[in-house]
Amino acid sequence: MPSYKLVYFDLRARAEPVRIMFELAGVKYEDVRIPFGSEEWQKMKPTIGLGQVPVLEVDGKEMPQSGAIYRYVAREHGMIPLDSWEIAQMDVVIETVKDMAPGMGKVFLEKDPAKKEFATEGCQPVLNNMEKLLKKNNGGAGWFVGDKITLADVLAFSMVHDAIPPLIGVEPGDLSYMKSQDALKAFVDRFKVEPKVAAWLQKRPKNVF
Amino acid sequence: MPSYKLVYFDLRARAEPVRIMFELAGVKYEDVRIPFGSEEWQKMKPTIGLGQVPVLEVDGKEMPQSGAIYRYVAREHGMIPLDSWEIAQMDVVIETVKDMAPGMGKVFLEKDPAKKEFATEGCQPVLNNMEKLLKKNNGGAGWFVGDKITLADVLAFSMVHDAIPPLIGVEPGDLSYMKSQDALKAFVDRFKVEPKVAAWLQKRPKNVF
Repeated sequence: MPSYKLVYFDLRARAEPVRIMFELAGVKYEDVRIPFGSEEWQKMKPTIGLGQVPVLEVDGKEMPQSGAIYRYVAREHGMIPLDSWEIAQMDVVIETVKDMAPGMGKVFLEKDPAKKEFATEGCQPVLNNMEKLLKKNNGGAGWFVGDKITLADVLAFSMVHDAIPPLIGVEPGDLSYMKSQDALKAFVDRFKVEPKVAAWLQKRPKNVF
Repeated sequence: MPSYKLVYFDLRARAEPVRIMFELAGVKYEDVRIPFGSEEWQKMKPTIGLGQVPVLEVDGKEMPQSGAIYRYVAREHGMIPLDSWEIAQMDVVIETVKDMAPGMGKVFLEKDPAKKEFATEGCQPVLNNMEKLLKKNNGGAGWFVGDKITLADVLAFSMVHDAIPPLIGVEPGDLSYMKSQDALKAFVDRFKVEPKVAAWLQKRPKNVF
């Protein structure tokens, strides 16, 4: 097993899917957390990767770009399907999760707390697409692709459980912003009780984002 | 060989990397082009994929999401490396190309034609990162990863040759906006004279974007 060091801010955000995959795979790694906006980061920025984090060090070799890190860690630990068509189904989910960015941006920019939840209207079409994709596999009763957890499930979970709720001022896992995505809600409930996920959710640092 | 149908607007934009890969692989496909903003598209939108194009039909089965289509077509036609670390290097390039989006957005929103090229300042840090990644492989004298054209090369070419120039009002392939990316310029010149690419650039429809 290579030696892994994950360098990121002291946030969940872009590093959390990597941490969840390491937990699911039972892989030890060094979880280096730099205070967000710190002098330490300003000093480190010109010296690391492409000047952005997360960076994953694999036996001392640097890998920048969260999207590349996700796929590498998933590939090395059995969380990418073997079949080419199934890989494509996984990629469709991953790209759909990324479609959330403009909707999330609007929620973030809405300053009136009373209107924050309403601002998630912009997220609803993407949530509906995620619901639709989930239901295409096993009628929505399992994971997004095939019969095992893949990178698609990890990224979908991170988005709807961890990333959106704090934007509207509620705790991770509060899914009250979901209007009509019952299969997706049930998926989150199923994912978070996977024993290794549940243990991690208990012990991870309590960051806001 | 499966039967492929690519459905997109009558634009290069998000479909062009798929078309270039089909040309490179010598694969026949149906290139369905819907007039952008047409009634035809308004009628088709609720019935196709996730309500967005491009969609690739493979033996009649629909695949939405350009990012999923790129990887599928690349994987099926030998344009993804076999080695896991090399795949990660490819993914780093792909994610870096995507980092161009905010800079391109600024160029697009700048209404004064005289200031358009200046607006590409926001693209320069990403171009520098692309230059840096290119030089890490074969000193920048070949392709982005390994010794063969991969999806990374196709997406990098599409971005710097096809997508940025029209935003500043110049022809595809006019690279005058590049300030200090000599290896990247040479890469574009090398890619566009690949015989199958050169033939396609000659015969493809003359869309603005």
